[in-house]
Amino acid sequence: MDFAADVRTTELRERSRAFVDEHAIPAEPILDRQLAQAPQAWGPPPIVDELRALARAQGLWNLFLPGERGAGLTNLQYAPIAEITGWSLRLAPVAFNCSAPDTGNMEVLNDFGTPEQRERWLEPLLDARIRSAFCMTEPDVASSDATNIATRIRRDGDHYVIDGRKWWSTGAMNPDAAIFIVMGKTDPDAARHRQQSMILVPRDTPGVEVVRPLTVFGYDDRDHGGHAEVAFTGVRVPAANLIAGEGDGFAIAQARLGPGRIHHCMRAIGVGERALSLVRERANARVAFGRSLAEQGVIREWVAESRIQLEALRLLVLKTAWLMDTVGNKRATTEIAAIKIAVPRAVQQIVDRAIQVFGGAGVSADTPLAGLYAAIRSLRLADGPDEVHLNSLGRAELRL
Amino acid sequence: MDFAADVRTTELRERSRAFVDEHAIPAEPILDRQLAQAPQAWGPPPIVDELRALARAQGLWNLFLPGERGAGLTNLQYAPIAEITGWSLRLAPVAFNCSAPDTGNMEVLNDFGTPEQRERWLEPLLDARIRSAFCMTEPDVASSDATNIATRIRRDGDHYVIDGRKWWSTGAMNPDAAIFIVMGKTDPDAARHRQQSMILVPRDTPGVEVVRPLTVFGYDDRDHGGHAEVAFTGVRVPAANLIAGEGDGFAIAQARLGPGRIHHCMRAIGVGERALSLVRERANARVAFGRSLAEQGVIREWVAESRIQLEALRLLVLKTAWLMDTVGNKRATTEIAAIKIAVPRAVQQIVDRAIQVFGGAGVSADTPLAGLYAAIRSLRLADGPDEVHLNSLGRAELRL
Amino acid sequence: MDFAADVRTTELRERSRAFVDEHAIPAEPILDRQLAQAPQAWGPPPIVDELRALARAQGLWNLFLPGERGAGLTNLQYAPIAEITGWSLRLAPVAFNCSAPDTGNMEVLNDFGTPEQRERWLEPLLDARIRSAFCMTEPDVASSDATNIATRIRRDGDHYVIDGRKWWSTGAMNPDAAIFIVMGKTDPDAARHRQQSMILVPRDTPGVEVVRPLTVFGYDDRDHGGHAEVAFTGVRVPAANLIAGEGDGFAIAQARLGPGRIHHCMRAIGVGERALSLVRERANARVAFGRSLAEQGVIREWVAESRIQLEALRLLVLKTAWLMDTVGNKRATTEIAAIKIAVPRAVQQIVDRAIQVFGGAGVSADTPLAGLYAAIRSLRLADGPDEVHLNSLGRAELRL
Amino acid sequence: MDFAADVRTTELRERSRAFVDEHAIPAEPILDRQLAQAPQAWGPPPIVDELRALARAQGLWNLFLPGERGAGLTNLQYAPIAEITGWSLRLAPVAFNCSAPDTGNMEVLNDFGTPEQRERWLEPLLDARIRSAFCMTEPDVASSDATNIATRIRRDGDHYVIDGRKWWSTGAMNPDAAIFIVMGKTDPDAARHRQQSMILVPRDTPGVEVVRPLTVFGYDDRDHGGHAEVAFTGVRVPAANLIAGEGDGFAIAQARLGPGRIHHCMRAIGVGERALSLVRERANARVAFGRSLAEQGVIREWVAESRIQLEALRLLVLKTAWLMDTVGNKRATTEIAAIKIAVPRAVQQIVDRAIQVFGGAGVSADTPLAGLYAAIRSLRLADGPDEVHLNSLGRAELRL
Repeated sequence: MDFAADVRTTELRERSRAFVDEHAIPAEPILDRQLAQAPQAWGPPPIVDELRALARAQGLWNLFLPGERGAGLTNLQYAPIAEITGWSLRLAPVAFNCSAPDTGNMEVLNDFGTPEQRERWLEPLLDARIRSAFCMTEPDVASSDATNIATRIRRDGDHYVIDGRKWWSTGAMNPDAAIFIVMGKTDPDAARHRQQSMILVPRDTPGVEVVRPLTVFGYDDRDHGGHAEVAFTGVRVPAANLIAGEGDGFAIAQARLGPGRIHHCMRAIGVGERALSLVRERANARVAFGRSLAEQGVIREWVAESRIQLEALRLLVLKTAWLMDTVGNKRATTEIAAIKIAVPRAVQQIVDRAIQVFGGAGVSADTPLAGLYAAIRSLRLADGPDEVHLNSLGRAELRL
Repeated sequence: MDFAADVRTTELRERSRAFVDEHAIPAEPILDRQLAQAPQAWGPPPIVDELRALARAQGLWNLFLPGERGAGLTNLQYAPIAEITGWSLRLAPVAFNCSAPDTGNMEVLNDFGTPEQRERWLEPLLDARIRSAFCMTEPDVASSDATNIATRIRRDGDHYVIDGRKWWSTGAMNPDAAIFIVMGKTDPDAARHRQQSMILVPRDTPGVEVVRPLTVFGYDDRDHGGHAEVAFTGVRVPAANLIAGEGDGFAIAQARLGPGRIHHCMRAIGVGERALSLVRERANARVAFGRSLAEQGVIREWVAESRIQLEALRLLVLKTAWLMDTVGNKRATTEIAAIKIAVPRAVQQIVDRAIQVFGGAGVSADTPLAGLYAAIRSLRLADGPDEVHLNSLGRAELRL
Repeated sequence: MDFAADVRTTELRERSRAFVDEHAIPAEPILDRQLAQAPQAWGPPPIVDELRALARAQGLWNLFLPGERGAGLTNLQYAPIAEITGWSLRLAPVAFNCSAPDTGNMEVLNDFGTPEQRERWLEPLLDARIRSAFCMTEPDVASSDATNIATRIRRDGDHYVIDGRKWWSTGAMNPDAAIFIVMGKTDPDAARHRQQSMILVPRDTPGVEVVRPLTVFGYDDRDHGGHAEVAFTGVRVPAANLIAGEGDGFAIAQARLGPGRIHHCMRAIGVGERALSLVRERANARVAFGRSLAEQGVIREWVAESRIQLEALRLLVLKTAWLMDTVGNKRATTEIAAIKIAVPRAVQQIVDRAIQVFGGAGVSADTPLAGLYAAIRSLRLADGPDEVHLNSLGRAELRL
Repeated sequence: MDFAADVRTTELRERSRAFVDEHAIPAEPILDRQLAQAPQAWGPPPIVDELRALARAQGLWNLFLPGERGAGLTNLQYAPIAEITGWSLRLAPVAFNCSAPDTGNMEVLNDFGTPEQRERWLEPLLDARIRSAFCMTEPDVASSDATNIATRIRRDGDHYVIDGRKWWSTGAMNPDAAIFIVMGKTDPDAARHRQQSMILVPRDTPGVEVVRPLTVFGYDDRDHGGHAEVAFTGVRVPAANLIAGEGDGFAIAQARLGPGRIHHCMRAIGVGERALSLVRERANARVAFGRSLAEQGVIREWVAESRIQLEALRLLVLKTAWLMDTVGNKRATTEIAAIKIAVPRAVQQIVDRAIQVFGGAGVSADTPLAGLYAAIRSLRLADGPDEVHLNSLGRAELRL
């Protein structure tokens, strides 16, 4: 057992750290100004392109993608980089071309796409020439139960016809999101986890309607394309747009989830570290009742508790990444569920404590905290609420 | 000891209940539509005036104000009405002319104002012809410690001159907020709690600048005038604008706080009840993994815990109101601190659980929950963070 | 609504307070010494009889029992007295002849007993000439589900024959516990809640075997008769020993529970107050790192949180008592469940915090805290674990 | 980074696992019976010697001790073995000669003892021919603040004279505890952490009085020598009994603490695993309201939460061990504090949930749970309460 990172990870971590400190965090107020200047725009303001160019030039590009098309890092090697990007959640992941949902979509195309699908969609995504969306969750059903999915994908000759309604399609408000990966049922009578398929739907296909944006605690998240409700009405695409085979949808979704959870959790830990660093500054600078906040026992306890949570959970995520790399996602089920539950919840608490330390500034836009809170809070719902995962984990644990 | 409400309370409670169910809650989507149609407006859309006219016609008007100028209710009698208005937090309090910060400002004018001040400002406020703001909190200092206040109010002949910067002046973005009550120091060398004074500053006085709106999480709260940062630069008002005497500011603030906490806490309990009623509907309607949410043990526990919290805390607020009515605010210090800490925290948790039950809909604008969360979360910071009150309460309790 | 206690309650509360402060608490070390001197004895040492005589002479006797055979107090009137007895949990309730399980057993005899049963068993219990036990819980089944009860009560001519095994029969190790009230099934085929009956079994009936004592976190609770496992093998008692009719057992148990929960909860609140008073002394006396514990923020928060919990929950218990007095136990179901869940849990936390403040002394016998912890912890299991009650409460709340 | 254990660790872990499953756990009821048969004995019953002989024969002996006198394992290698011994907390550590306080005392002698001290005391301890005690905590002061220590060690010619009072001297009730390591002040005027020294005091030295046993909740812990209050009155020992030099006491205590925390924490994790395994059995076997406990959502959540806590915290302890092995205790300060706080607290909660699942059996002696609860609860007080460590950790974290 060895807790030291390898040379490549260490080197990339240092360069990422420098990029985030020197470029991403200082650019956050610029992002806000550019957003304010274009109140109707859905999509990244100019600063994002600048940062992308800079990151790409430094080789900090597509680090999330294993294999030859990406940087070739293992999950364990990429994880610490993802953490560092969490320090500037709105800018660093997108600058590195490592932001959701594009990462997951690129993985799907990389792992399950045909050469034609890869050429048509993966290449421009890897180049950040286009963006993508993932259309999974539905407004009318509890989508954490995949058998509930109501969207239909029907074969019709050389085509598939898609009908259904999705929401929380992150990024889809951005007109550059040129390709949607849609989950639907091809065979409602098949076995429970063979009913679903995934299919590629270009945004401009007739019958695709981006209905409206959704907000998260008042935020529209315009800078990364918002979250859309999307209706699919008689949408017809070539049969070649199906990803893998009919009935493979559930398995692809599961495969997509594993690395996604590592990414989300490590970024969340970075968010927690950022919050803690803000608390550190504030607590030393702010005086109340004759003493700095840093001298007050309750604040010290909060900081200590936050530190403990971050140290323990980071290790759990790293071990999960290591298991995925060494024995595969299936044998890491317990750990994948564990981090999905535990990390966002802990970071939510850490950010909430930070808000409390900042008072009014904490809930306003004068600190990044309230926005981070909203982002992290949503993670506890995305891909199934905590309770679904707790239940699965508990059931697995209780088998004699 | 008797836990039954008196006849007048019961009667008003029933009528308020009917108003909220029949008029306020159904008007919430109208409010949202009208806000969307006037994206630059700061102040209540037309539906608010309609509801106000209706409520006033039904005698549901100024119920918060004791004595002959108001409805003459005790704190204990008004408390259950305040709870009911919490069921439609954005519409019912304002419809009843019982919304903060106007209520507190009217109380200050009622209790401490001169006849001229009352005629000039209290009358139009009671008539809802104007709105007001309360300028207390400052961006640069921990305002929960009143000795930190940096705004100066200097006597200059027949005038006072005010210099300072305030924020979280709720309602001040609304151009109808014609009068600001400003807290500042008249004598920084006086005893700790005799340094501060309060003064009336008409909005249109030269030197008053409403600098910018603040957001709470991503909400601007335009419908009730937002939350402003306000700069006062050499603002000159007649000496007669001082409320009570020099040095009375802290005492007035304390007097204002008592009823305000009853109002806030009871409305918060109403918010909790609303959240719970939404959970009830959702849990019965939503099916996951073959059973309705209402049949799942974890959801039942959440609902039970929420019910317990609401029942216990409602009684504590009512007892606090009763103490204020019978022995006065000073002897209710422990209870006033206790409800300030415990109620918003519990309701925050109740609303958060409700969000979890609703999933994506919970964080979006499709339910009122995320907005209520932001509002309740802020209560834990307004008038001093929880920790300041816990510390005072603990210190008082530890004296041998 | 009125939160002031009536004259009789106030007067009894003051006298009880004086008794507990002057006699019961000072006698606690005497109790420990007398127990140490008689290491094999199961039953109250001499100090208990002395205190009983004193309390009885002062009219502080059988206050729990409503109606003419008792003190005639309502639940609401007795509740504050029960709280005060909780300050000296091992001595005050027993000194007042108000300790479980005798109180519940006397209530059962008072409300459901025949004149002969009352004369034979209630009179000596009211006089404290004998003690009793309540044989309900069984080792082999989840007894919170009454349909699980396996003990059989079979009619055989003029007798009933009882077979079964009970445990947690509190007090039964004391040879003075002359009468056992036993719950069993007379008709396993009847409707769910008409299968059970209760019957009086004198301790010396052949076939009754007090098998062994049970411990609670290492404590044997010898001073109040311990907790026994009791086997009933072919135990034959006259048919006249049945309490009320066949099938009435469940209803009697429910009737017994209501006041019992008020008593347990109010005593538990008294325990919480005692713990808090010990913390107050300790925190002022103890110095660590240059300051008294009372000056340390974390300790202050604990004390404040404890105070808030006690204030809110006391009101909830009192309201429950008032509901029982005015509209009956059935319409107080929600509240009875709520206090059963919330009070022991909160007091457990309060006592645990007190232990933490006392350090090593807290877990040892040098303070009463560890013993109180064990007693309160057990309340969360007695009469069904919290989770059963949370589930019922949640289900009731979720009905549309 | 690599989460796989090395070959030696894996091999020892498997053998330890087999020993605990086949010998230690099955011997627990034997231990209880032997204790019941010798109600006055302070010290291990015969079964302990049997298990020791067996373990020693299998090479499972002194595994805790690094270097040539012990098994030569690193902290990281020993940690998983310590976890396994936690599965049978009362028997496995002592069987392996790896139980506190002897382990810490042996480390002190190993690292700081003279050859004479080692020969005289370390050898028989390594052979389990004698036992030892560590006399650090004092009843009258907050001992977590080392400057509070009141025991004096005064030089008098060739001797030191010791005066003071200690308590929580674990093991000291056992007459076989032949040697006490006593912490006291040699120079109260020296720098804060140079005032203290440690000295070896043979039990039979005149002036040493083992005053009384202390209980933990209701447990006397007789099987491992209980917890004693010990008075030292004019106790005279040769100057050669001083360990290292005058003023080295604090440093030795710190050095002793590091490995001790790894041991305690890993055993605690083993306790948590044992509790969870008991829950697994119970939850599958027990039926309430028509379903096994394992099918009930709340129980599943508890189990899942317990699993998450154990996985995350185990990794944190292992990383701490690795840091101690690679960069030393000083640079692992944050982690050592973190595990000291987080592990016992989490395991306390896990054991408490298990008690709740078991109901009455959980608080009684019919399961090991209540005893384990008491043991783990005490860890949160031993070597300083959680709050002291949280405060240090928070302070360190807040330095800019």
